[in-house]
Amino acid sequence: MRATVMYGAGDVRVETVPDARLVDPADVVVHVTRAAICGSDLWPYKSMEPDETGRRMGHEFIGVVDAVGSDVHTMKVGDLVLTPFVWSDGTCVFCREGLHTSCLHGGRYGFDGVGGGQGEAVRVPQADGTLVVLPVNRDDALMPSLLTLSDVMATGHHAALSAEVGPGKTVAVVGDGAVGLCGVIGARRLDADRIIILGRHPDRIAIAKEFGATDVVSERGEDAVEHVRELTDGSGAHSVLECVGLDQSTVTALSIARPGGAVGRVGVPQDEAIPDALPVFMENITIAGGRAPARA
Amino acid sequence: MRATVMYGAGDVRVETVPDARLVDPADVVVHVTRAAICGSDLWPYKSMEPDETGRRMGHEFIGVVDAVGSDVHTMKVGDLVLTPFVWSDGTCVFCREGLHTSCLHGGRYGFDGVGGGQGEAVRVPQADGTLVVLPVNRDDALMPSLLTLSDVMATGHHAALSAEVGPGKTVAVVGDGAVGLCGVIGARRLDADRIIILGRHPDRIAIAKEFGATDVVSERGEDAVEHVRELTDGSGAHSVLECVGLDQSTVTALSIARPGGAVGRVGVPQDEAIPDALPVFMENITIAGGRAPARA
Repeated sequence: MRATVMYGAGDVRVETVPDARLVDPADVVVHVTRAAICGSDLWPYKSMEPDETGRRMGHEFIGVVDAVGSDVHTMKVGDLVLTPFVWSDGTCVFCREGLHTSCLHGGRYGFDGVGGGQGEAVRVPQADGTLVVLPVNRDDALMPSLLTLSDVMATGHHAALSAEVGPGKTVAVVGDGAVGLCGVIGARRLDADRIIILGRHPDRIAIAKEFGATDVVSERGEDAVEHVRELTDGSGAHSVLECVGLDQSTVTALSIARPGGAVGRVGVPQDEAIPDALPVFMENITIAGGRAPARA
Repeated sequence: MRATVMYGAGDVRVETVPDARLVDPADVVVHVTRAAICGSDLWPYKSMEPDETGRRMGHEFIGVVDAVGSDVHTMKVGDLVLTPFVWSDGTCVFCREGLHTSCLHGGRYGFDGVGGGQGEAVRVPQADGTLVVLPVNRDDALMPSLLTLSDVMATGHHAALSAEVGPGKTVAVVGDGAVGLCGVIGARRLDADRIIILGRHPDRIAIAKEFGATDVVSERGEDAVEHVRELTDGSGAHSVLECVGLDQSTVTALSIARPGGAVGRVGVPQDEAIPDALPVFMENITIAGGRAPARA
């Protein structure tokens, strides 16, 4: 079969690889019908050291079940299934608490002998605990939207949950990329009173407004902080969704949080430390979030 | 009157200063009967740059009301009162939410023309929003315990609240100083299932056990992390109380938190950043806490 392999920064090849096949009784093999590229694929695309073995790519996909292991009970050949971006057993203590990203027996596509979704087929371990059978057919108009539940929409929603969005709250979303835009949807679903989007791409800002953003802050750095404060009686936002992961965006997110507020961070941190330890402490700002348990 | 003034690292003097007196209608003057030294007094004692003006010391005290401003309604001359370590109006949006440390019109003893508790008397601004009238007399046996409500016990309790301590939870307390020991009390009050104290002073550990600690970890660094993991089926503690504020203790606190767990930090951060941004993100560990709203 054909699959995408990354050999280093800027070096992605589509190659013939061994066919995906059942290995463990809890596996299924999925024939991929839709796959996406993640923002997190772009980091190795920019920085990965050359690696002769290569790394199979893709952790967001929808497909049709091709083969089913003897210990799989919730799906059959022909079912259309969606995967979250990690696989998980669904039964360990963390899965039972809804934190499938910390599954004791889980793992990541493209590692540990498991392939990726940017290929013709994938072996999915722990299929019962991982895949969700979709009640629509593979050409349904909803398909592009459903694919976002694999990662980006779940991640935006997780940012909003982690930032404690709720009725009456003023929310700020740092970043107008795909995750930030999904964060706007998440904040609206959780009944935020007001949603401030921080970004400067007119096309994305237009989408943010369509999704429910009520205010736009297009400045950066100190000016952005000042603008958000102007919009919030000087206090800042109750809930801030950090959807970028860079040091500067994190400083901005922490600086626009209201005393006693919460920052939900879902942008994969590109720096070793979280800045502003003391100011965050002085104002009792909570820092939460992380990898989204999309399966939950 | 006599009061304590710090002029720089290691340079504390007891001097004659102008008598405390009413300035604003919301003030009272308190004659101090009990005062304490805070861990946070020790940082300037170690590091304060020489300052000819000096800084009045002390933010934890109990005393008798000596004079009452015309706009004070909840206390009278002769009342015994306790102060939280900051003053606050009790009416602003943050006070109403129980976050008196972020009061819009509050402030700190020893700054902005207000004296400190390590002296004969103190002018307390915003008295109605700040002081609590005690229903006991000044020689009551409870007095040393009541004095801890000014800061250290409130801080330990805040650590436990911020770390989301509750029934069924395993709690770890990093630090066996006064705050850590109060954190043990706080965790027990919130019905923690198990309380692991990390510390190595036999006398303090004995107190921790008396207060409800169920396990002791006396190692440091990596060994401490390993020991806590052994005690918790490899997972770590649901709730971690960071009661020191140093980089190393923060790394330990974050490392022993269970995936999905929370670290309540109340040790004043001595470093500019919070370490371990990525591992904390990977496991969805929440970092909360800050200055304790003792008045609440």
